[in-house]
Amino acid sequence: MAQPDLPKSAISPRRAEDFPEWYQQVIRAGDMAESSEVRGCMVIKPWGYGIWENMQRALDAMFKATGHKNAYFPLFIPLSYMQKEAEHVAGFAKECAVVTHHRLELNADGKMVPASPLGEPLVVRPTSETIIGASYAKWVQSYRDLPILINQWANVVRWEMRPRLFLRTTEFLWQEGHTVHETEAEARAETKQMLEVYATFARDYLAVPVYTGEKSESERFPGAVQTLCIEAMVQDRKAIQAGTSHFLGQNFSRSSGIQFQTRDGKQEFGWTTSWGVSTRLVGTLIMMHADDDGLVLPPRIAPTHIVILPVTPKPETRDAVLTAANKLAAQLRALTWHGTPLEVHIDQRDLGGGVKNWEWIKKGVPLRVELGPRDLESGNVAVTRRDGLPVAGGADPGKPATKAFLPSAVFVRQAAELLDAIQQNLFARALAFRDAHTRAIDTKEEFYEFFTPRNPAKPEIHGGFALAHWNGSRAVEEQIKNDLKVTIRCIPFDDPESAPESGQCVITSEPSARRVLWAKSY
Amino acid sequence: MAQPDLPKSAISPRRAEDFPEWYQQVIRAGDMAESSEVRGCMVIKPWGYGIWENMQRALDAMFKATGHKNAYFPLFIPLSYMQKEAEHVAGFAKECAVVTHHRLELNADGKMVPASPLGEPLVVRPTSETIIGASYAKWVQSYRDLPILINQWANVVRWEMRPRLFLRTTEFLWQEGHTVHETEAEARAETKQMLEVYATFARDYLAVPVYTGEKSESERFPGAVQTLCIEAMVQDRKAIQAGTSHFLGQNFSRSSGIQFQTRDGKQEFGWTTSWGVSTRLVGTLIMMHADDDGLVLPPRIAPTHIVILPVTPKPETRDAVLTAANKLAAQLRALTWHGTPLEVHIDQRDLGGGVKNWEWIKKGVPLRVELGPRDLESGNVAVTRRDGLPVAGGADPGKPATKAFLPSAVFVRQAAELLDAIQQNLFARALAFRDAHTRAIDTKEEFYEFFTPRNPAKPEIHGGFALAHWNGSRAVEEQIKNDLKVTIRCIPFDDPESAPESGQCVITSEPSARRVLWAKSY
Repeated sequence: MAQPDLPKSAISPRRAEDFPEWYQQVIRAGDMAESSEVRGCMVIKPWGYGIWENMQRALDAMFKATGHKNAYFPLFIPLSYMQKEAEHVAGFAKECAVVTHHRLELNADGKMVPASPLGEPLVVRPTSETIIGASYAKWVQSYRDLPILINQWANVVRWEMRPRLFLRTTEFLWQEGHTVHETEAEARAETKQMLEVYATFARDYLAVPVYTGEKSESERFPGAVQTLCIEAMVQDRKAIQAGTSHFLGQNFSRSSGIQFQTRDGKQEFGWTTSWGVSTRLVGTLIMMHADDDGLVLPPRIAPTHIVILPVTPKPETRDAVLTAANKLAAQLRALTWHGTPLEVHIDQRDLGGGVKNWEWIKKGVPLRVELGPRDLESGNVAVTRRDGLPVAGGADPGKPATKAFLPSAVFVRQAAELLDAIQQNLFARALAFRDAHTRAIDTKEEFYEFFTPRNPAKPEIHGGFALAHWNGSRAVEEQIKNDLKVTIRCIPFDDPESAPESGQCVITSEPSARRVLWAKSY
Repeated sequence: MAQPDLPKSAISPRRAEDFPEWYQQVIRAGDMAESSEVRGCMVIKPWGYGIWENMQRALDAMFKATGHKNAYFPLFIPLSYMQKEAEHVAGFAKECAVVTHHRLELNADGKMVPASPLGEPLVVRPTSETIIGASYAKWVQSYRDLPILINQWANVVRWEMRPRLFLRTTEFLWQEGHTVHETEAEARAETKQMLEVYATFARDYLAVPVYTGEKSESERFPGAVQTLCIEAMVQDRKAIQAGTSHFLGQNFSRSSGIQFQTRDGKQEFGWTTSWGVSTRLVGTLIMMHADDDGLVLPPRIAPTHIVILPVTPKPETRDAVLTAANKLAAQLRALTWHGTPLEVHIDQRDLGGGVKNWEWIKKGVPLRVELGPRDLESGNVAVTRRDGLPVAGGADPGKPATKAFLPSAVFVRQAAELLDAIQQNLFARALAFRDAHTRAIDTKEEFYEFFTPRNPAKPEIHGGFALAHWNGSRAVEEQIKNDLKVTIRCIPFDDPESAPESGQCVITSEPSARRVLWAKSY
C-alpha cells in the first residue's frame, strides 16, 4: 500500500509495512540472490557472493591467526557413521538428503532413471562431525598428535520445508571448525576462543553487536555438551543466531574412536569442539542494516567501497568527465584501508544518472561520488554516504542524506576516514536500536505483554530482547515457546565487571541465579 | 626392492621402480591427502589443501582480471534438467550420484533407513551447465544483459570406479566458468582466452609447460562444439589433461532457453562457454616435479617458502638459537615476493634434526635453513634448495644437493632471487624433459615401437609425446587406442611463426594438414 505522506523509497513494501516481504525485496533490488527451482536451494548472485567472499577472507585470516589450517573432507557420509552418535542422528534425521544410486540409465519409456543402487546409502553432509571424526580417529595416536586444529569451507545440506533466502536454505555455504584436544580445559578454551572470534568479526566487520552466551539444553547442537552462540537483534526486533561454537566433550570421540595415549601412558578419548558460521550471516547483515531504499553495507564487508558515477549529458564533455573519473579512481585505488586497497567502481554505462544512482543505493555501496562537466571547472565532486549521514559533519541524522560538494583532492584525503565513520555509525546505530528494545522484565504479565502484538490483525513490529529470570526447567521454556513463540536465545556469560544478578523465575517465581535472554527468532 | 647401489631415498618405491605406487607414497610422505572410507572420495589434508588454496588464490585473481565474478549455484540438479541436452546426459549418466530421499526414519529393526522419496530425483552436479543455464535463461533478455561472465568454486561428483588421489576421485573440487555472449566470435575468443589463462597459470605458478590445442571430436566434452585443453607430460611420460575450455555454441542455450533480443530486434540464442580446472592440478604438480625424496614444490604455489630448522643440541644455547631463528624469520617475513609476504615456518619441535629435515624434504618446501649454536658465532646459516641445485652457483645439477653456508644477512638479501631461481629451474627441467621425450614420428612401425614397453613383464617407463599425422578419422583413433592405449591429446594450435606442416597419416598414409599430439594419458 503506497503511503503518499512518506518520502519516496526504493523498496516496497517498507520495513514497517511487511518486514519479511521487505527482506525479500531488498535481496531482489540488490541483485544478491534468488530462489532456484530446486526446492529450498538458492542461487547466490555475484553481488551477494562478493559479500560472502569478503566474509570468508576476513574469517579465514582470523582462523589462521588462531592456529587453524584448512582441509577438506567428503561430501558424503555413510549412513552407518551418522548412526554412531544417537542424539546426533536423531537431531538431523528429518533433514537428510540421501544418495541411493550412482548411475542413470534409460528405462523402457526412454527416460533416464536412477540405477545401480548403493549397498549402503550415503547422506549428503548436514554437518561433518562424524565423517571428520573417522579421519581423526586414524590421525590421533598419542598426545603428541594433539591438538588438531582444522577448519573446512564447504556446502552442507539440511532439507528445509520453509526456506528463506540466506537465512534458511536446503543447501548453504559455511565453514566448520573441528578440533581435538588433550584436555577438557583446552577444548573448553577453544570453544570460547572461537566464539570470541565470531563476536569480534560480527562487531568489527559486520557492524553487528551480539550477545554471547550459552544455549539452554533444549537448544543445544545434537550431541554437544555445551553450545555457545552469538545472537543479534535485527530490525524487526527478532533474534538471529549468527554463529555457534560447540564443546562436544568426549561424545563424538567415543563414537568415532578418537583415542590417544596420554602423557602417563594411558588410553583416553580426545576432547573435541566444532564451530561454524554460514551464509546466514549475509541474511543477518541485510536485516540488520538495510533500509527502505535497500541494502546498506558496512564498508569493511562491501565488495565495492566507492562507486563513481560520471554524469555525461553532452557528447563534447564526455571524454573529459570520464578521464577525470578514471583519475579519481586511480587515486582512490592507490589507498590502503585496513590492509587492502580500496575497491572503486566507475559506472560508465549509458543509462540515466538517476537510474544508475538508485541501483547503487539499492546495492548498499558505502560512498557514491558524482562527477559531471561543471565539476571539471570547480574541481569538486559530489559525495553521498549510504548510511544517510551528511558527509561534512555527521551531526544531523534526522535529515535525509545530503550530497556534499568537496574538492576532489579533499575527498581522496578523507575517503578512508569517511569509510571508518560509516562503519562506526552503522555499529552505533545497531547497538542503540538493540539497547532501546532490550528490557529487563520481572513479571509474567509484562513478559507476555512485551511479546504480544498490540493488534494481532496487523502484525506490526513489537517486542525485542527480554532479560528475565528462569528456573532452569525445560517445562518453562516449552510453555513460553507454545504461548509466545519465544525461546531462550542464550544464557549470557558472566559479566566480568559484576556478579550475575539473582532473582525469581518470571513464570514460577522459583529462585534464579541470573537473567537469561529471551526473544522470538529466525 | 631395495637397490643398495643407489643413494638413499625417502620414497619407496622409486619413480623408476613403480611410478603409480611412488605417486601414492609421495602423497603419503608429504601428508597431503588420503583415501576415505567413502568409495572414491578423498580427504585433502592441510598440506595438500594449502597448495590448492594457493592455486585458487592465483587463478581467482586471473579470472577477476579478465572481468569474471564469482557466484554460487545449487549442488543438486533436477534429473529433467540433465536430460534437456541429450549428448550431455548420455556423457555423464554412468557417473551420477542420485538423491532419491530427503529424510531418515527408524525402521522396525531400529535402523535408520531413507524415507520421504522425492517426486523427481536430484543428481549431485557432475558439472553445472544445465543448472546454471536455467538461471541464465531468466537473467538474459536483451543483448544489453550480455556478456555474462561468471565463475563458481565448487565440489562436483562423478562416480569413479578406479579412483586415484587427486587425479580421479568421485568428489573433487574445482572451478567452473560459465559465460554467455552475444556473438559466436566473442564466445570463441572467451574460450581461447581462458585456455590461455590456464596455460599461463600452469607455466608461471606450477612450473608446468603445456601443449595447448583442441580435442578431437571423440574426446570432446559431452555437448560441446569445441573443447580446448592444456596437456602436460609428467615423469612417466604420460599426458595429463590439466584444464579444459569449451565452446558450447548454442547447444546449451537452446536446451536451457537462454534467448535474447538482438540489436536489430530479433530473438537469438546466446553463445555459451564453460571452462574448468580442478584438484587434479595438485596431482599433476606431484607427478611433474616430485622426486625419489618426495614432493618438490614450485615456490609460487608452496604453502611455506622457507622452513627454518633450529638445531638445539644443548639446553644452554637453546634460547639463543631460537631467538636468532625468530629474528631471521621476522626479516624474511618482511619481504614481499610476487606481491605477497614470504611464508616462513620455524620448526621448533623437540625431534631429532634429521627427522625434521626429512619431513620438510618430503613436503617439498623450496628452501630449508639450518641454524645452530655454532652459527650464532659465525653469523652464517646453512641453506639447502629442495630442487637439488647448489645455492651458490647453480651450475652443477649432477651433484646431490649441497648445503651452502651464507651470512644470514646475505641469505635474507638473496631469498627472493633464490626462490625465483628454483621456480625457473623447475620449469626448465620439466620443459627439457618433455622435449627430450617428444618425437615427430612418420611411420606406423616407429609409432608402435615408441609406445610399446621393451619388456612387457617389467612395465618400465617408455614412450612420451608423439607428433604424428592423422587422417582426421575416428576409426584411426580407435585402432590406436585399442592397440596401444594411446589417444590424441590435442590438435595443437597453429604456430603463429609458421604454417602447420602437412604430411601423411601415420596409419593410413592419407593426406594430413598438420601433426597432432598422441600419448598415453591419465
